Amino acid sequence: MTDTVIYPNEKIEDLQVGGLKIIQQTDGYRFTTDAVLLANFVKEVKGKKVVELGSGSAVISTLIAYKSKPKSIAAVEIQPSLYEMSKRTVELNGQGDTVKIFNSDIKTCHEILGGNYDAVVSNPPYIKVGSGLPIENETKAIARQEIKITLSELIETASKLLTSKGSLYLVHQTERLSEIFCEMTKNKIEPKEICFIRPRINQTPNLVLIRGRKNGGLGLKILPDIVIFDDNGKYTKTVSDLYGERND
Amino acid sequence: MTDTVIYPNEKIEDLQVGGLKIIQQTDGYRFTTDAVLLANFVKEVKGKKVVELGSGSAVISTLIAYKSKPKSIAAVEIQPSLYEMSKRTVELNGQGDTVKIFNSDIKTCHEILGGNYDAVVSNPPYIKVGSGLPIENETKAIARQEIKITLSELIETASKLLTSKGSLYLVHQTERLSEIFCEMTKNKIEPKEICFIRPRINQTPNLVLIRGRKNGGLGLKILPDIVIFDDNGKYTKTVSDLYGERND
Repeated sequence: MTDTVIYPNEKIEDLQVGGLKIIQQTDGYRFTTDAVLLANFVKEVKGKKVVELGSGSAVISTLIAYKSKPKSIAAVEIQPSLYEMSKRTVELNGQGDTVKIFNSDIKTCHEILGGNYDAVVSNPPYIKVGSGLPIENETKAIARQEIKITLSELIETASKLLTSKGSLYLVHQTERLSEIFCEMTKNKIEPKEICFIRPRINQTPNLVLIRGRKNGGLGLKILPDIVIFDDNGKYTKTVSDLYGERND
Repeated sequence: MTDTVIYPNEKIEDLQVGGLKIIQQTDGYRFTTDAVLLANFVKEVKGKKVVELGSGSAVISTLIAYKSKPKSIAAVEIQPSLYEMSKRTVELNGQGDTVKIFNSDIKTCHEILGGNYDAVVSNPPYIKVGSGLPIENETKAIARQEIKITLSELIETASKLLTSKGSLYLVHQTERLSEIFCEMTKNKIEPKEICFIRPRINQTPNLVLIRGRKNGGLGLKILPDIVIFDDNGKYTKTVSDLYGERND
């Protein structure tokens, strides 16, 4: 595992879970807590076929492969640099039998991947193009803004990939919750569960985890909120537990 | 004001706000805290034209007329017994110049009321027909179940009544949040603010207050949750404050 090539602008980070490592760019896109929360929100994929859309550093696929023991994960990443880097992460963790990275546009990836997947997972770009967010770095901008894929296109693709009763798992900004519900519904994915994420207990949620079910029945369940930081600015127990062995 | 007729199956209740009274049936439909929360969620209607859809005992219109000083409220109620009873409530409170009750089907009330209203307010039936809820009493059943009006029909009418940039205020069950957002969006009412209602601090929300804006821009804001009961089963300060003078 030590033969994996690491470039000068990269760093190997310890995920603090099962000895997993992630290669990250020191000057570009880096994964956030959102990805870790999403990976832990995914359920019932043991032995199942999973797709991750917009996999970036492949942190989500890496965590799901370790924690949830799916049969396979097809991770789709449009950016060649991240595709290449995340392939090395998979190799580094010895997860090559489970996780395959595809360098593809999300909009057309179903042509390569086919359908009948049990779960689709995505931590997509949150920000609409033209919202005034500066583009400091192209890799980062593509990961954060809807430059290569819109919410609508992402959910349309997810629906094509999912088998009937399969689940779509998303993390997104609460301010776009209505759009997400409407796009899901339009694509026959019924929102079934949401879990709000609050930075602190007394703050309103800014992020939301969503599970929708292809051809699912009506009825949305609200799960208990996740609070990220306690009053001292440290991770709450709920969040620090997600980082596994890192905690006391 | 003491000349108002009260029937044997009715009771005058004190709203504990500004000396307002509500006539309620002792054996039929009765308003709930949901109505009081909705009335207090309505904002910026001073001097404006308001419609209430499905006004029941007219408790919401009564509270808004007192607290928010709108120019007018047209309250629409399909059930003749509630229409007649709520007319007497308006008389009892001396609010006849502001609140007019219309005995009409919500689906066609825009033909009588016209359009260009600044706000539409509704605490509609929550439950789909056929969900197995028993019908103990017809008046109650119509108030609680979608027998005379569906969510979709209600929002369609609201959109016809609203002026551009006017607001729709609803209270509903959280499990129907996705449907509400999609019906609003379909009818060009953009969900702008939601406020979740939790029975107790450690319980997940079961109700939600929603403000949508006709032809509004994208972007949903989540307001701080309202918690109904404290650990001792008493109203929290937030809720008891809504009942005005009742509290210490």
